[in-house]
Amino acid sequence: MATRKVLSELKEKIRGFLPNIKIKSIEFEGPNLVVYVEDPKQLLGSGDIIKKLAKDLRKRIIVRADPKSRKPPGEAEEIIKQVVPEEAKITSIFFDEENGEVIIEAEKPGIVIGKRGKTLREIIIETGWSPRVVRTPPIRSKTIEDIRNFLLSVREERKEILKKVGERIHRGTIYKDKWVRITFLGGSREVGRSCYLLQTPESKIMIDCGVNVSNLNQTPYLYVPEVTPLDSIDAVVVTHAHLDHCGLIPILYKYGYKGPIYLTQPTRDLMVLLQLDFIDVAVKEGGVTPYESQHIREALKHTITLDYGVVTDIAPDVRLTFYNAGHILGSAIAHFHIGEGLYNVAFTGDFKFERTRLFDKAETNFPRLEALVMEATYGGSEDFQPSRKEAEEKLIEVINKTVSRGGKVLIPAFAVGRSQEVMIVLEEAIREKKIPEVPVYLDGMIYEATAIHTAYPEYLNAHLRDLIFHQGVNPFISESFVRVDSASKRDEVINDKSPAVIIATSGMLNGGPVMEYFKALAPDEKNTLVFVGYQAEGTLGRRIQKGWKEVPFPSNGKREVVYVNMEVVTVDGFSGHSDRRQLINYVKSLSSKPEKVLTVHGDEGKCIELASAIYKTFRIETRAPMNLETVRLL
Amino acid sequence: MATRKVLSELKEKIRGFLPNIKIKSIEFEGPNLVVYVEDPKQLLGSGDIIKKLAKDLRKRIIVRADPKSRKPPGEAEEIIKQVVPEEAKITSIFFDEENGEVIIEAEKPGIVIGKRGKTLREIIIETGWSPRVVRTPPIRSKTIEDIRNFLLSVREERKEILKKVGERIHRGTIYKDKWVRITFLGGSREVGRSCYLLQTPESKIMIDCGVNVSNLNQTPYLYVPEVTPLDSIDAVVVTHAHLDHCGLIPILYKYGYKGPIYLTQPTRDLMVLLQLDFIDVAVKEGGVTPYESQHIREALKHTITLDYGVVTDIAPDVRLTFYNAGHILGSAIAHFHIGEGLYNVAFTGDFKFERTRLFDKAETNFPRLEALVMEATYGGSEDFQPSRKEAEEKLIEVINKTVSRGGKVLIPAFAVGRSQEVMIVLEEAIREKKIPEVPVYLDGMIYEATAIHTAYPEYLNAHLRDLIFHQGVNPFISESFVRVDSASKRDEVINDKSPAVIIATSGMLNGGPVMEYFKALAPDEKNTLVFVGYQAEGTLGRRIQKGWKEVPFPSNGKREVVYVNMEVVTVDGFSGHSDRRQLINYVKSLSSKPEKVLTVHGDEGKCIELASAIYKTFRIETRAPMNLETVRLL
Ligand SMILES: [Zn+2]
Ligand SMILES: [Zn+2]
Ligand SMILES: [Zn+2]
Ligand SMILES: [Zn+2]
Ligand SMILES: [Zn+2]
Repeated sequence: MATRKVLSELKEKIRGFLPNIKIKSIEFEGPNLVVYVEDPKQLLGSGDIIKKLAKDLRKRIIVRADPKSRKPPGEAEEIIKQVVPEEAKITSIFFDEENGEVIIEAEKPGIVIGKRGKTLREIIIETGWSPRVVRTPPIRSKTIEDIRNFLLSVREERKEILKKVGERIHRGTIYKDKWVRITFLGGSREVGRSCYLLQTPESKIMIDCGVNVSNLNQTPYLYVPEVTPLDSIDAVVVTHAHLDHCGLIPILYKYGYKGPIYLTQPTRDLMVLLQLDFIDVAVKEGGVTPYESQHIREALKHTITLDYGVVTDIAPDVRLTFYNAGHILGSAIAHFHIGEGLYNVAFTGDFKFERTRLFDKAETNFPRLEALVMEATYGGSEDFQPSRKEAEEKLIEVINKTVSRGGKVLIPAFAVGRSQEVMIVLEEAIREKKIPEVPVYLDGMIYEATAIHTAYPEYLNAHLRDLIFHQGVNPFISESFVRVDSASKRDEVINDKSPAVIIATSGMLNGGPVMEYFKALAPDEKNTLVFVGYQAEGTLGRRIQKGWKEVPFPSNGKREVVYVNMEVVTVDGFSGHSDRRQLINYVKSLSSKPEKVLTVHGDEGKCIELASAIYKTFRIETRAPMNLETVRLL
Repeated sequence: MATRKVLSELKEKIRGFLPNIKIKSIEFEGPNLVVYVEDPKQLLGSGDIIKKLAKDLRKRIIVRADPKSRKPPGEAEEIIKQVVPEEAKITSIFFDEENGEVIIEAEKPGIVIGKRGKTLREIIIETGWSPRVVRTPPIRSKTIEDIRNFLLSVREERKEILKKVGERIHRGTIYKDKWVRITFLGGSREVGRSCYLLQTPESKIMIDCGVNVSNLNQTPYLYVPEVTPLDSIDAVVVTHAHLDHCGLIPILYKYGYKGPIYLTQPTRDLMVLLQLDFIDVAVKEGGVTPYESQHIREALKHTITLDYGVVTDIAPDVRLTFYNAGHILGSAIAHFHIGEGLYNVAFTGDFKFERTRLFDKAETNFPRLEALVMEATYGGSEDFQPSRKEAEEKLIEVINKTVSRGGKVLIPAFAVGRSQEVMIVLEEAIREKKIPEVPVYLDGMIYEATAIHTAYPEYLNAHLRDLIFHQGVNPFISESFVRVDSASKRDEVINDKSPAVIIATSGMLNGGPVMEYFKALAPDEKNTLVFVGYQAEGTLGRRIQKGWKEVPFPSNGKREVVYVNMEVVTVDGFSGHSDRRQLINYVKSLSSKPEKVLTVHGDEGKCIELASAIYKTFRIETRAPMNLETVRLL
């Protein structure tokens, strides 16, 4: 088998590189190469050697102590507790036998690490376990805990999966032909069911596999020969956790895919949260779910998380690197390097080319880039949005006006993205006394999604990181935010007479706890309804936005009429998508000018208009492909 | 099984339609529906009923006597010989048990048929066999005889094959989705290895599968998932017999395809001739053949021949109709009707939109046409060719000049197409005394290819048919034509001192008997070399055309130099391809204006230029797709 040959060649190289270090064995683990050494001490002072080796072999390398030299977990835990000062506030320690790692969760990770890593070195020398330090999230996230526990419970199976993935990645190449093409399986000339297949003679990579939110019966074209059988796919890459990009990932496992899913760690956690909610809502509404929770778990079992900027082999001739997309927590631009310098193509996923309250603007600096597949949600020639600053000022003004007349502000919002964006604006406004100190109630999944945000501060922008790490201010845990997690608490909020801000799901008033708030608050003209997101045609949100003053309302099977006397305001500019100007500027700002740009994820007219504008502005070849088409890149 | 249900429903319908006729059984045979009746007499006088039934059921219907009511072949043959008058000159009678047909080959088919079919009726009534009358070809074709004998020898197996094909065609449809797309697997932005895949949710149809004549290592992209496994393909359609369109058909059977090939009867015969020659030449040149003669036979076993204008079910949702393409004998434009009125797309294959000596101009009259895939060999903006008339005048002038100085005219030509075209010109010129009565020698496969032409007069143009059928003049069998079929005969022709015309293969002086003539005739300035076809870059023909006066020449392993003193003339205008003006006029003349035109079978620049010209002239959406791309039509 080709893999075995590759491994023995690698072993030779490593021995040549590290002649003085006793290497017990090496093996593939997903995309990584794990080197087991007898005595990890020898390598500890020489982090640079590992880096050089990784660069030379073009592989990600993980060094572990030979399992035989590890102390039993109980004993090791005692040693760690002695070595680490109490001020570090360790909240949990767990041993990942699969990886030979001990994960130490602490409120002050810096103290666990010690000066120049002194404490870490002590831990590995004394216990034989490689320590990994993670910050104890300031808000407990049930999702993260469940995921962590699930993955630990299946670690044996995962070890097998990762070994197989590693072998498949390193199977070697066979074809003399060199070509690269993309088949568009969904999300082209439409928003929803994003799904693309990147193909070379050697490999098939699927990028995203989403639901069509406005028509749940429409899946991507997964029955066409390019992707059947599904297990002919080498790897699935998820750009971000919104359901139009990952909502149907579990269906792949239901129908026979057995390979890996590459995504960032926050995307993994948010994805599981949203997928579970997706089937939950479908069941509650009496519908048929396209998959069950077991398929979500099966998918989770196959996830391989990657940080931004880490180059990873995912197929014999394909390397993947994620870059910040600025859209939601963990959202990534997926960059593929094909062959040895043969071709480079990036998929933007959804992206924001403007620094927001939460994220830095989308990355434009790629070592090389021949083709770009980009979103075109606001690609139309008139799709200009107000700046963030204008949007924030308008929101603050509306809140002040409502509060001063004793009313409540209701903000329907999608759980992930805009909710947190608005929260940060409100926290600052309260802290800087731009608005009075009113409670901000969070209802629906918003609280849980926010908890996940607090677990990954390194995915937030520099300003927020500075605030959290250096100034000790975590805006997400401000005392102004009040979680609503029961019907009685909700009633309390509604019946309380004092002014407040309420952020509740869903974002388009088509279900979720926001409905109850709306029903209660709508008749009173003191209150205000603020739309911060897009309202799709056919939703209640859209009708109210259009000015309907009496809306039919489902209530215990009967239809009531709700009279809308409250003020209705739309605040544009909070979108997580780049507007027309930002889309064009993004292409202009790319460090490496692509030869081809393909526009997707937008209505037909917007994809075509953006393609045409980019062609006219930059003389780059563009196309707005259709679903089921295949475009040749090379 | 869906097929069974379809059959029993059809049986009910037929019984309702023909209440007085005893139907024994019905079954599918390839695309046809065979109705076995106890007593064929009952249906004989009512041909119209069958036509109406066929129209009503939208099926091709064949009526046969129940096998039990057929006389044994020996006995039946005696009866036929008694019934048919001797003047009919029957040359052979054979019984096709598979079809319940007796094929009567006669020099005067009209006499076998009898007044208003009287004799035929007698035959069926007396023997129980359905008679089919074919004309005895005026020149014996070994190819045709071999094919006929082979097919008879495998008739049992063929019966099984046709039954399976019939069941697969009538399997019923499953998908709700409606879409149509084409994947370009070869012959796009290039000339050679033509291969296209027409796909719907239900069906896959491959159109052509050719060799790349200038690079035999390059096959169409048959390893991509759209066509693997090869047996996922429902049907293969061959537009014409040139190797760049059908040279790799046998490879499909080598690698697992088991389905039918649809083509015209002349295409079938010429295809087998050229494929056998193709592997023969490859073996002689010491090369590796991509397939063996057994795969040619396997392909032949799966052929289903269709005449122009016959609408045929070839998949649950696809109907195929061939139309005259005017390019070579049997060449067809393949028109596909998809769904019930859903979509129509035609592939021109190679086509000539000008009436030639042999063929009517390509068909433009289609009931409906939404998309056209057309060739672009001469699609460049400067690709204008002289008219046929000018070309013929120039050829005659050159011959006269050479003959009058006592020289020989050597015309390198490809066996199928241009050779016969030139033959007809010369025959007429001699008959009308425009050139002296010199012998016209035919060497290489030209004679055999010509024999096949004489077997299918109904595929020639109206003028030739009139000449052959009504004026008793068959230009192909003129006494001026002399076959050269041995080395000694060739030496004789070369050493003879008197003027002559020699037409010999190959057409580009890259092998074949033409080489010997050239070597012998080149040094003498009395002789003339006339190019009537395109000379590809890199061929000896091209070098001589460019004016080389000394050419290296392979001879018994050594390299000799041949001095070119003979006159060298290029006569443009004999091409079987439409020139730029004809291509544009073709689109203009279509009875049904397509929404989309895709250009293929031409150098990159020519495909793009033609696409752009058609867009500018007619405002039709056009594209010049690349190999490996998929274009969505609907
Ligand atoms: Zn292995
Ligand atoms: Zn998104
Ligand atoms: Zn999206
Ligand atoms: Zn041709
Ligand atoms: Zn051709």
